[in-house]
Amino acid sequence: MNKARNERPLRIGVAGLGTVGQGVLRVLARNASLIQARCGRKLVVTHASIRDRNKRRDCDLNGVALLDSPLELVESEIDVVVELMGGLEPAERLIVSALKVGKSVVTANKALLAERGDIVIEAAERSGQALGFEAAVGGGIPVIQVLREGLAGNEVDSISGIINGTSNYILSRMTQEDLVFDEALAEAQKLGYAEANPSFDVEGTDAAHKLAILAAIAFGMPPSFTSILRESLDGVHLQDVHLAKELGYRIKPLGIAKRGNDGIELRVHPTLVPTHHPLAFVDGSLNAIRIHGDIVGQTVLIGAGAGAEPTASAVIADLIEIAKGRAPSLPLGQPINLLKTQPLLPLESAQSAFYLRLQLTDTPGALRALTTILAEQKISVEAILQKEPHEQKFATLALITSVTSESNYSRALNKILELPFTHGQTVRLRVEYFEDLK
Amino acid sequence: MNKARNERPLRIGVAGLGTVGQGVLRVLARNASLIQARCGRKLVVTHASIRDRNKRRDCDLNGVALLDSPLELVESEIDVVVELMGGLEPAERLIVSALKVGKSVVTANKALLAERGDIVIEAAERSGQALGFEAAVGGGIPVIQVLREGLAGNEVDSISGIINGTSNYILSRMTQEDLVFDEALAEAQKLGYAEANPSFDVEGTDAAHKLAILAAIAFGMPPSFTSILRESLDGVHLQDVHLAKELGYRIKPLGIAKRGNDGIELRVHPTLVPTHHPLAFVDGSLNAIRIHGDIVGQTVLIGAGAGAEPTASAVIADLIEIAKGRAPSLPLGQPINLLKTQPLLPLESAQSAFYLRLQLTDTPGALRALTTILAEQKISVEAILQKEPHEQKFATLALITSVTSESNYSRALNKILELPFTHGQTVRLRVEYFEDLK
Repeated sequence: MNKARNERPLRIGVAGLGTVGQGVLRVLARNASLIQARCGRKLVVTHASIRDRNKRRDCDLNGVALLDSPLELVESEIDVVVELMGGLEPAERLIVSALKVGKSVVTANKALLAERGDIVIEAAERSGQALGFEAAVGGGIPVIQVLREGLAGNEVDSISGIINGTSNYILSRMTQEDLVFDEALAEAQKLGYAEANPSFDVEGTDAAHKLAILAAIAFGMPPSFTSILRESLDGVHLQDVHLAKELGYRIKPLGIAKRGNDGIELRVHPTLVPTHHPLAFVDGSLNAIRIHGDIVGQTVLIGAGAGAEPTASAVIADLIEIAKGRAPSLPLGQPINLLKTQPLLPLESAQSAFYLRLQLTDTPGALRALTTILAEQKISVEAILQKEPHEQKFATLALITSVTSESNYSRALNKILELPFTHGQTVRLRVEYFEDLK
Repeated sequence: MNKARNERPLRIGVAGLGTVGQGVLRVLARNASLIQARCGRKLVVTHASIRDRNKRRDCDLNGVALLDSPLELVESEIDVVVELMGGLEPAERLIVSALKVGKSVVTANKALLAERGDIVIEAAERSGQALGFEAAVGGGIPVIQVLREGLAGNEVDSISGIINGTSNYILSRMTQEDLVFDEALAEAQKLGYAEANPSFDVEGTDAAHKLAILAAIAFGMPPSFTSILRESLDGVHLQDVHLAKELGYRIKPLGIAKRGNDGIELRVHPTLVPTHHPLAFVDGSLNAIRIHGDIVGQTVLIGAGAGAEPTASAVIADLIEIAKGRAPSLPLGQPINLLKTQPLLPLESAQSAFYLRLQLTDTPGALRALTTILAEQKISVEAILQKEPHEQKFATLALITSVTSESNYSRALNKILELPFTHGQTVRLRVEYFEDLK
């Protein structure tokens, strides 16, 4: 009836007892009986590697053998290695070695999967052992499973998601509290959301890592991190947050993967999203991921994208699947050697609507000259807002264009900047539209 | 490396070629190569049982052996039976017999799982064969998988969901288009969302079936359909939709399962939801399910809750898991004989905020008398709205109470109705609050 009942415990070795590692130990202890009921055996952390034995940790380490090097886990009497160190090395060596000697692996390491996915995933497939990485994307949202198993009958057309909690926190605080970028960032750092060096989050590297993993599963392509367009959050000024709001949008940090006839688009940038869509008002450090499949249509998943315990929730989900003996044998849903590199759509050809903010001398004919240039490039204006000069010398103009190609938009913008009425810095952001939820 | 590659095709027999059945055949044909890549073998429908051979069907039946009785599938040379007939019999006999002879089963039959779940699930566990029912709840949203596997490390505290697309459609049209209930229902029937006899949807039976399945997985209890409180949608008047809107709420058809210290609450009723939460503005026939777990917090899943192809998406996800040999051996996540019947919270003790609409003579002291009664029962008024009598004799009053017990509220209401100022019919609805998405 149920072969898994009353089996011996699953022995777990954890590499790295940082915030998430401690969360995993706490939850495994707190929900032990529930977890045992759900997988028919105990999950027991028997080993952990730590860098500093003297550091205070918020979990019970009683009965856990502490190792100084994560690589010692390879030779330890454990069934699964949980890799929570992050970074490329020694994580890659640990994971590949552990798989080779017949241990399963669970990891939250999106950088490794996105940048060296070919190596670690091939190692997993060759070993026949599980490689779980639900925790690598979307924190507690089981998006890997939904994409790989739940929507497996679908040809996925696009994924658009708030997949970096820190960036979402910063933009949310700018929107809600009128903070400038630096203030919101400082707040995120104070709360521990952003690192002292926040570039990984703010410049889109972390989101690009996650997007590479999602696109690999959705589009059946090898993880392709380097080809992802990344635009930093710090190009968004408080003024743009306000103008976007008045135009009916929120600025959100989106990772976007789209499949078109002429190639794949992969990009991470601050994006204007119409206010009526959930992606527009999922705030704080929450994540939200919209998946569009050919048969299911639009599916949106919202939840905790970061934090010790939500991430532990994903790690433990993978551990339970391993304990039940039903972890997938193909981490990306298809054998990695059968995945095909997909042609990327050249950026010039990418279609998008654009938000443009610029300063104009308040002269008769200025607006006419500008809209004439747009019309000549066959770009229509979907929304426009001009603020009176007030105490400033120039009027601020913000507009949303119709959908056009990047190259067409750039041609128009260059001509606009040559007009004698335009001044100073312009801000350009992309706009994405989604179906209503009805 | 990948034992599943190049295996023989998975032979499928479909019982019932209605809308969903035809959708399954269409999608299996359209996405055949993608599906084969994802499970390493072909999925082929070799048999189908139909009631009427002459009916025009929107799918290719070439090469499909047509049977007159679904029970013939039990003896056919197939690996999986897909049961899409609905209803209790002969679905139960078909499923149990198929499992007994070693066939796997995929079903969308929520009524059967909710009312005879013990029998069919025990049959599946005894047979060692898979019983997939992702399509039974939430259409294309993979909520069964998310709850059973993705959030398996969580103690789930509550589930609140729009899980009946027809009811959501009706209330959405009332809200958006100012239709009265009967008009919105007629429209839903015209579009094929509601049956000629709409009571299954409107009175909450369908949602209660689905809620019983979700609660079984979440709370580790046997499916318990009969104990679910159901209140019909037809108690909602257009006036209430308007008043709720003015008070900052939308009226949504929710299924609610909550675990408290004193027992489980299971109820299906039209519910006031604060406007800022996604459950408030997921409209039309879409579904939205909010799951709250102890470690992950709030997770919200939104997507197509009905329709031929979204439901086919769920059926095919189950079929792919079966083809890969990794369908779960325990349909409810734990052996059914280990599940414990959970005590239900008596309705009188259930805590909720309430919406009350009534008519008052416009007399000095009327409002004071009413609020005095509420204060005596320790109920505070969270929001109140009184409309001038206008051309009517009486003023309309709508209010939202603080959270209180059902019995306490009823005591107050009875006293209010004894006042000389109150007249005619009162409307009482429940209100649910959720955390903001931040």
